[in-house]
Amino acid sequence: MELELKQYSSRTDLALEARELAGGSDMRPIPGVESDTYEEEGIRVTKISITSAEGSQAIGKLPGHYITLEVPALRNKDSDLQDRVATKFAQEFSSFLKRIGIGPDAKVLVIGLGNWNVTPDALGPMVVENVMVTRHYFELMPDQVSPGYRSVSAVAPGVLGTTGIESSEIVQGIVEKSRPELVIAIDALASKSLERVNTTIQIADTGIHPGSGIGNKRKGLTMQTLGVPVVAIGVPTVVYASTIINSALDMMHHHFQKQTANTSQILGLLDNMHENERLQLVREVLGPLGHDLLVTPKEIDQFIEDIANIIASGLNAALHEAIDASNVAAFTH
Amino acid sequence: MELELKQYSSRTDLALEARELAGGSDMRPIPGVESDTYEEEGIRVTKISITSAEGSQAIGKLPGHYITLEVPALRNKDSDLQDRVATKFAQEFSSFLKRIGIGPDAKVLVIGLGNWNVTPDALGPMVVENVMVTRHYFELMPDQVSPGYRSVSAVAPGVLGTTGIESSEIVQGIVEKSRPELVIAIDALASKSLERVNTTIQIADTGIHPGSGIGNKRKGLTMQTLGVPVVAIGVPTVVYASTIINSALDMMHHHFQKQTANTSQILGLLDNMHENERLQLVREVLGPLGHDLLVTPKEIDQFIEDIANIIASGLNAALHEAIDASNVAAFTH
Amino acid sequence: MELELKQYSSRTDLALEARELAGGSDMRPIPGVESDTYEEEGIRVTKISITSAEGSQAIGKLPGHYITLEVPALRNKDSDLQDRVATKFAQEFSSFLKRIGIGPDAKVLVIGLGNWNVTPDALGPMVVENVMVTRHYFELMPDQVSPGYRSVSAVAPGVLGTTGIESSEIVQGIVEKSRPELVIAIDALASKSLERVNTTIQIADTGIHPGSGIGNKRKGLTMQTLGVPVVAIGVPTVVYASTIINSALDMMHHHFQKQTANTSQILGLLDNMHENERLQLVREVLGPLGHDLLVTPKEIDQFIEDIANIIASGLNAALHEAIDASNVAAFTH
Amino acid sequence: MELELKQYSSRTDLALEARELAGGSDMRPIPGVESDTYEEEGIRVTKISITSAEGSQAIGKLPGHYITLEVPALRNKDSDLQDRVATKFAQEFSSFLKRIGIGPDAKVLVIGLGNWNVTPDALGPMVVENVMVTRHYFELMPDQVSPGYRSVSAVAPGVLGTTGIESSEIVQGIVEKSRPELVIAIDALASKSLERVNTTIQIADTGIHPGSGIGNKRKGLTMQTLGVPVVAIGVPTVVYASTIINSALDMMHHHFQKQTANTSQILGLLDNMHENERLQLVREVLGPLGHDLLVTPKEIDQFIEDIANIIASGLNAALHEAIDASNVAAFTH
Repeated sequence: MELELKQYSSRTDLALEARELAGGSDMRPIPGVESDTYEEEGIRVTKISITSAEGSQAIGKLPGHYITLEVPALRNKDSDLQDRVATKFAQEFSSFLKRIGIGPDAKVLVIGLGNWNVTPDALGPMVVENVMVTRHYFELMPDQVSPGYRSVSAVAPGVLGTTGIESSEIVQGIVEKSRPELVIAIDALASKSLERVNTTIQIADTGIHPGSGIGNKRKGLTMQTLGVPVVAIGVPTVVYASTIINSALDMMHHHFQKQTANTSQILGLLDNMHENERLQLVREVLGPLGHDLLVTPKEIDQFIEDIANIIASGLNAALHEAIDASNVAAFTH
Repeated sequence: MELELKQYSSRTDLALEARELAGGSDMRPIPGVESDTYEEEGIRVTKISITSAEGSQAIGKLPGHYITLEVPALRNKDSDLQDRVATKFAQEFSSFLKRIGIGPDAKVLVIGLGNWNVTPDALGPMVVENVMVTRHYFELMPDQVSPGYRSVSAVAPGVLGTTGIESSEIVQGIVEKSRPELVIAIDALASKSLERVNTTIQIADTGIHPGSGIGNKRKGLTMQTLGVPVVAIGVPTVVYASTIINSALDMMHHHFQKQTANTSQILGLLDNMHENERLQLVREVLGPLGHDLLVTPKEIDQFIEDIANIIASGLNAALHEAIDASNVAAFTH
Repeated sequence: MELELKQYSSRTDLALEARELAGGSDMRPIPGVESDTYEEEGIRVTKISITSAEGSQAIGKLPGHYITLEVPALRNKDSDLQDRVATKFAQEFSSFLKRIGIGPDAKVLVIGLGNWNVTPDALGPMVVENVMVTRHYFELMPDQVSPGYRSVSAVAPGVLGTTGIESSEIVQGIVEKSRPELVIAIDALASKSLERVNTTIQIADTGIHPGSGIGNKRKGLTMQTLGVPVVAIGVPTVVYASTIINSALDMMHHHFQKQTANTSQILGLLDNMHENERLQLVREVLGPLGHDLLVTPKEIDQFIEDIANIIASGLNAALHEAIDASNVAAFTH
Repeated sequence: MELELKQYSSRTDLALEARELAGGSDMRPIPGVESDTYEEEGIRVTKISITSAEGSQAIGKLPGHYITLEVPALRNKDSDLQDRVATKFAQEFSSFLKRIGIGPDAKVLVIGLGNWNVTPDALGPMVVENVMVTRHYFELMPDQVSPGYRSVSAVAPGVLGTTGIESSEIVQGIVEKSRPELVIAIDALASKSLERVNTTIQIADTGIHPGSGIGNKRKGLTMQTLGVPVVAIGVPTVVYASTIINSALDMMHHHFQKQTANTSQILGLLDNMHENERLQLVREVLGPLGHDLLVTPKEIDQFIEDIANIIASGLNAALHEAIDASNVAAFTH
């Protein structure tokens, strides 16, 4: 309950943002939440572990492991950078699998959540389209598969509005028939800041949960519902208008702080409100007028294509030892 | 065995063509095969019932009921004709369901077989995209669904080459989870004559069988594999180069017959061969050179879109009593 | 100069918004600017005429005639409403042409500005794709064209970044060769409020000007550059993050005004600033951080398709007397 | 006249096929027609020069230089081969330009003929989309363009049926405004044999002529109409049903020749007919029944994408010295 409320009020699917919100601008430590960050050639990698119910409550995210790659320059259409991000993603994903006990031969089913016809929600289906699928070779001619590959299948189950069936039900049915040992679920997320949209990738071992993501995927894809571990890969592709405004007020606060001690003279009561409280206020004002839309950058078509290629390339390298992590792009369309 | 051989040699997925092949040009009666034809405003409707193993052997198709709509003028982009075909299809489909004992409230799952990225194989996914889906309303707010609608869901399971999983396995999983009472499977077919490509629609209660269709859908969707009745809707969208040639030799025979008694002077030994024998010969000549491709008309993009709309509109009207068969197009995109 | 500055600061391509900005919330009269509004079944039509340099200066828009259709409910996917908007658009467009002296036989060239591959910028190309083109019949078999039609051609010239040529140069070349008597240019616009995105259509006889629109169409399409009258049809499809924030602050002001006389206690100095001044401030804060992106609603794919169909249907009815304005949709895909 | 008849009867846009037709299976020399062939790693390159009116008459093609790359294995989705073909194409195209006197700084306009919405006719627009466009940099900031690049612009003018304007008129207008020194026109062609479809690329310095290509591009793009040299790049993407049949009869003749001296016993009179005569006969038989369609292989979507990428990569390397011919793919999407 409390959890849901927080999640709702913070309007972010990123553990990283939830942690920032809870920690305040001075990033004070939160019991039960560990985090660690490094940066390398324009890619910032943050690992967050939520190790207790207390930590989970504090930041409104489930206990588990989260890795975030932040690459602000991803929007510049720099194909060298894209290759480096795919390689870094492959490395981090590969060690993430090891860390949670997934072996190099574990059979994988990649699930691309979302809707082909809604560009900011098409990330999952686009990754599925570019993932190298091998399961049928293992099934039909197991003797002829080269070493260094594992069994990978990939399905985009569609969304409730177009199939009439919860995507979780479809995935359950497919898992029961095809018997993977790990499910990797790709999903588009909502972020609380425009700058993270299409520049951030989150990996988590918590599965996909009711209310997460931007579409109608309500029953969740988790170890509990599917019977196998579920690793979620998410990219924020949209942001609520209300959170754009809230972030802007925050930025104003910091902007004026450099000039005056008395920022509340400029920003009034807005200045002293806690972020969640102020967001609530903004939403009350915008909501009734239908202004609190989910929005996405104008260049979304290109961004989604780029980041889907990065994730598909990265997955291909991370899942098959025969594919060299240093040159992942060659195996993807 | 025998069945497979025949099916292969005839290279047609249409009962109508198989019947013609077996009956010869004089359409002599075949025991165990009943057929009935009427024509109305440019739409020719043929109903074939295969009622015995003998009939099945004779024409190389499974026992069951087949309806074929042939509309040669469909290629002329005439939107009035398209509306009339959708309406006729809705009527025939509706009585077909009654005839095989499917009630007006039976829950339906529409399966669009085939591959989005291969235009002549995209028929199934395109129909799924345009079918009116209602199952989620029945599940989430059953009290609020207007009378005259039934529960309809729709999924395009992809093809083996892109998912790594047999589409039949995926469909089995979905059927077990979502519990429909009827599966309607849409598929692109191979025909033996170019003129039937994109102008013919076949309805059959025999399900989808190994080796049918143009893609990799090998395990079949049938009452046996799914536990519920399966009605197949197929449209020929491709034809083998070899059958184009064979049909042409046949047309030449008929052409010259009008001019001379001695057509074999002109056509040599080709003239006296049985159709299947000649086809075998043509395939032997073309095959090794890689000439026996599946081909499709140049205008396939438009044709597929038109016929997918016709089928989706027709299904919407046939499945929901609240949708008037006389104006089916309005409910489809 | 001054004009450009204002246009920039207001960040709107809509005369309607510019007029509101200049007139303030009490909409005081502005010399040289006439406006007239009526509403009919959810469609609000506003006609603005800028009749003097003074009026033009005051609101930062060129002298000329502007018609705006506002339809807030357009986002609800109501196909009846869409038909009514197409019909209303056809009527208004038709009288607009008469009013500016364009006869029923004047040859028309429709230009779809923008980029196919950027969804919010694809409006122009999508309209071009759905406009009924007749010029070739008039050129090749003039005797056989039915009465009630005029010569219409349609081209999407692409954008500078993908062709390497200014779209204005391409259009000039086409105009010189194909000799239309009127150019209708369709373009995606920037609005200052999210609610107007994809719900508003503007018709103007001022042509397309440097700096307008969201793409690189810098040299303008005007009577001066093309030698024939140019009517522009624009739809806001994007909005700057900064203007979303600015609008929100404005909404907050009105929200709190209902509760307290002293709104500046809540909103601080932001409350007393003039709108343009405040926008300038917001932009200063966001800009350096790369936060001032152009954004578009998540559902942009569907919205663009719907509104492109409305405009194409409306144009087909307005341009050809033989097409009945009461049933325009039938002629469009 | 005569020319047109021949061109029509042969139903090929390839000089290579026309030369074969005229030379017979023994490839006897034809006065005024020189040809030279070499093969390298699965790529066969044939250079044909038609040097006299007599040669032109004999094979039904205009005087000029033709280069053909034949790569039967292109259909196997082998990305290494695709890279090699792009590199070979770049080399041959580059020397072709030198040979016809085009310097390394000559400004180039690439014209993609054809229709986006008809897959087998979309080659031109797809190449345009992937060509590296630089003209705007030369126009807007000439000082900042790196050495080794030239001015390249690219436009897909659409087809008569969708614009209402001859594409030749549109191109003329664009040439007059943008002043290129060379036009390169890409077009989809008709071949007479299925095996050449999507496996063959023709380069010619004769421009694009009335009646060539598969769309409505009737007025031609030539030095005469545009005032600058025109190099045409064509790929056969479709074939008439009638030519498939004719080729098959030819293959049968060769097949039976190995077994018997008396092939006409098997093939009747068809065996002794000259190829063009027989084609005429086949067309007479098929035509009235609407069987003589243009067809394309089922896998056309993938084939067109692959070959468009090869041509775009090859052009990028051939046109800009700064792009290394040995690694052309990197510069293309």
